[in-house]
Amino acid sequence: MITTTQSAIRGVVEEFVREELSQENAQIAGAVWAMLDAGGKELRPRMTMLAARAISAQAVPDPILASYMELIHVATLIHDDVVDNASLRRGRDSTNSVHGNRFSVLAGDYLFAWVFKKITQAYDNPVPTILASMLSEICNGEVKQLRASGNLALTRDEYFEIIARKTAELFAACAEVGAIVALQRTAGASGPHVRDHPVVRALRSYGWAFGMAFQVRDDLLDVVASESAIGKPAGSDLRERKVTLPLIAALESGDAAIREQAARFFAADGTAEQRELESLIAQLRGGPAVPQTKRAISAFEEQARSALATLPHSEAVAELQALTRTLSEYSS
Amino acid sequence: MITTTQSAIRGVVEEFVREELSQENAQIAGAVWAMLDAGGKELRPRMTMLAARAISAQAVPDPILASYMELIHVATLIHDDVVDNASLRRGRDSTNSVHGNRFSVLAGDYLFAWVFKKITQAYDNPVPTILASMLSEICNGEVKQLRASGNLALTRDEYFEIIARKTAELFAACAEVGAIVALQRTAGASGPHVRDHPVVRALRSYGWAFGMAFQVRDDLLDVVASESAIGKPAGSDLRERKVTLPLIAALESGDAAIREQAARFFAADGTAEQRELESLIAQLRGGPAVPQTKRAISAFEEQARSALATLPHSEAVAELQALTRTLSEYSS
Repeated sequence: MITTTQSAIRGVVEEFVREELSQENAQIAGAVWAMLDAGGKELRPRMTMLAARAISAQAVPDPILASYMELIHVATLIHDDVVDNASLRRGRDSTNSVHGNRFSVLAGDYLFAWVFKKITQAYDNPVPTILASMLSEICNGEVKQLRASGNLALTRDEYFEIIARKTAELFAACAEVGAIVALQRTAGASGPHVRDHPVVRALRSYGWAFGMAFQVRDDLLDVVASESAIGKPAGSDLRERKVTLPLIAALESGDAAIREQAARFFAADGTAEQRELESLIAQLRGGPAVPQTKRAISAFEEQARSALATLPHSEAVAELQALTRTLSEYSS
Repeated sequence: MITTTQSAIRGVVEEFVREELSQENAQIAGAVWAMLDAGGKELRPRMTMLAARAISAQAVPDPILASYMELIHVATLIHDDVVDNASLRRGRDSTNSVHGNRFSVLAGDYLFAWVFKKITQAYDNPVPTILASMLSEICNGEVKQLRASGNLALTRDEYFEIIARKTAELFAACAEVGAIVALQRTAGASGPHVRDHPVVRALRSYGWAFGMAFQVRDDLLDVVASESAIGKPAGSDLRERKVTLPLIAALESGDAAIREQAARFFAADGTAEQRELESLIAQLRGGPAVPQTKRAISAFEEQARSALATLPHSEAVAELQALTRTLSEYSS
């Protein structure tokens, strides 16, 4: 039986990169390998495989499909780091800081194209369409996020729309294609209507709500966690002029001091001193922003749990439930 | 009847962008529109449509498919200009110089994803696979080109491999998918074997050889043409440390002065003076590089013509033949 523990999945993805991608472009495979090796949580491939097993005890999860989902994620990270001009990723030098922006743009493009080549060769619709739509949503979300840089008038709903596209769509797609491929293989389901299967819909909803909770938590950690815990400097989002829920919640509460300080910080556009950033972070930590952001996380978590509650109980469903509980941990 | 003149095709592509893409992301559509409006030659969509008509007089060319091919090309140009740090494209400010690198990376990603979403929804295999493979070849070629920057030991064959991937594959795919979709619709051909149809093979070979001739000519124009003729400063390739056929041919001829001058120019890595570039260009223009490069263009042109010679005569085939003749014009 194929296990779905984090280390087992990482082994699967790394082996896949070594065997398949290295032969086609060793330099790009090396960059991907370095990023995998820095240690992500393999949440997306795990979700893909668990969703397959949630279909039925007989369903065999597809580790190749799971690997493609992680590679799409890695490709978006490589481009994100170019877009954000980030020097650290997962506690190590980012691809752009090792190989430069030019290589990073091409490496991300190559990964997208290579994964789509493989996907269109090996998987029937609607899988290729779901993945291409998801990728266009991610880019759409990233463009909206870029346009919202430093915009203190950004509303909570606009923020949710951005993170839905840039983050939740990928988790939703992981759960959905994991389930669809399992259904196609066990029940011989075919055609676009497989997306309407109640179990597929429930798993997609689960993935989406999980992704929302995951991103809000990530945005909270940027404010409350230490550099050693998140692998990049605290306050990176503020440095990059990203307006996220903790700041929006603080502004909603009518805190004039925070509004003024944030406006001054964004206006300085990167030339602000480190202590100004630290003072802003300290204010966010001390105010109502943190509990309010935690409430938003809990609401999405609850939504994820409810989606799973419609499924017949199984070991896979229990593992998916357990994944949502990790979202309430803020110490790591 | 759908016409395949340059202006008609541009109208088709521009209308498609206005109607389809604008609704989904107005900002990205605006950037694409600006690039189309700057006036490319619409060679790729023309080839796609002419290849369809070369299948049979009854075949109806697909202007939407042709538009997708132009959009893939535009997306690669947007990323190329980031990678090359180019400020001009088609005589106007490049997307990165207007909107910045961050937006340009995301806009290119979005276009790729959006086109693949549409393609996987509307076209059967092997079309999506051909396009995804082509895109991974383009990126592979670009990575190889980047790695070959300033490498005076680059051989003619290595150069041909790079341009085959980065340029010829796209023209080959344009001709191939144009022909395949026409066959699928008129003769009800289906399955991957449609790629083996002799007419499809001939049109693909034509597109490939045309693309090779096109890129070698482009690399020659960078040396022999004026800025007003090519819409970017002469010698841009040398400035970007790209080693192309004119330089390779000059080095092959054993010209020690050029080797020394090129080595010095590349070693200066962008800090060299404009007059050093001009002196290098003047030497390339005066030596055997130009006639040798023209011979390579003629050979690929001849290969393109031979591929077409296997097809039954038709108006479309005559138009494709005429396209190859434009490759011997060096004054524009």
